[in-house]
Amino acid sequence: MKHPFYVEIPLSFDRITGIANCSKPALERRYSDMKNMYFDEEKRKEKEKGGNNLIYRFYDLGIPKKEGDLAFGTSIIYPGKVGNEYHMTNGHFHTILDTAEIYYCQSGHGIMMMESPEGDILYKEMKSGQVIYVPGRYAHRSINISSSETLITFYVFRADAGHDYGSIKEKGFRKLVVEDGGHWTVIDNPRWKNYE
Amino acid sequence: MKHPFYVEIPLSFDRITGIANCSKPALERRYSDMKNMYFDEEKRKEKEKGGNNLIYRFYDLGIPKKEGDLAFGTSIIYPGKVGNEYHMTNGHFHTILDTAEIYYCQSGHGIMMMESPEGDILYKEMKSGQVIYVPGRYAHRSINISSSETLITFYVFRADAGHDYGSIKEKGFRKLVVEDGGHWTVIDNPRWKNYE
Repeated sequence: MKHPFYVEIPLSFDRITGIANCSKPALERRYSDMKNMYFDEEKRKEKEKGGNNLIYRFYDLGIPKKEGDLAFGTSIIYPGKVGNEYHMTNGHFHTILDTAEIYYCQSGHGIMMMESPEGDILYKEMKSGQVIYVPGRYAHRSINISSSETLITFYVFRADAGHDYGSIKEKGFRKLVVEDGGHWTVIDNPRWKNYE
Repeated sequence: MKHPFYVEIPLSFDRITGIANCSKPALERRYSDMKNMYFDEEKRKEKEKGGNNLIYRFYDLGIPKKEGDLAFGTSIIYPGKVGNEYHMTNGHFHTILDTAEIYYCQSGHGIMMMESPEGDILYKEMKSGQVIYVPGRYAHRSINISSSETLITFYVFRADAGHDYGSIKEKGFRKLVVEDGGHWTVIDNPRWKNYE
């Protein structure tokens, strides 16, 4: 009989690094994987040439994409900036748009940036122990606003929700989170394209 | 516009106690709430008369019961035994039977006991940092096997999954987790009733 847990048991996540003790490696996103995702594309290219370090890691543990199942893992965003824009994930809508996602912050200091297709914007700071509820219909991106700490979140979503990265890659988010005078602030994205 | 997070933000769970910083109190289960759930009902009655302490707490944060939403919270089981049977939750099936649940152990030492309607039994130890994937179709009960530590887990399930406590209350689980010579062990439940 196929083991019904789908994933190796016991599966655990390291409290400090966010890394799982399983044979599936964390997926990696480096500067070379985020072309045109940051406002300052020239600065991103410099980072790519200058070592092309990791920006973030996350897991796809292979949970079957069935509506009764739940996918989960950790998202691990290393501190850093591209120009004055903080390290962040690409961000995505769910393909089944009206499905929520839960992020339980394990360590670090971040922002969850969310926007609906209609342009409603929500963003929330997150620190260790805090839960962010990303409502259905909202694209979401995690942003590490610490200068030194890794942002680690534990996420859960319906396993069949699917990921729509395309519309964010094409249009971006309407808002950027940048450093200004040593603090984070939210500004309009000058490059955001409204095709509608 | 109704705030789409449904719950107070920022919502956080205390790392030591498991208690949320929100206005909704944790639900409580005491000895008086678990009549006939432990093998030794006389011992349970003694505990009820002798202070009727808390066995466990958990949260219903009021997430709408929609299929795209996710309910979450912490389960907090205090150490103790009824006879040689460890403190545990009542346990439940989901009303939408084939929906999974994720438990992310925050602290303590526990067992997740699971069984399908057909009698397939699964149980897994859990410690801080470990994730237990409860597959769809499996009833599940959390059991605190530590003599001193509180078992705290963070759980997520589809908000419309529903809870079916009735069949466990009527029949029990097929297996019990008891202390034997200072260690936990799994035994057949002598009172389990097979009505089929």
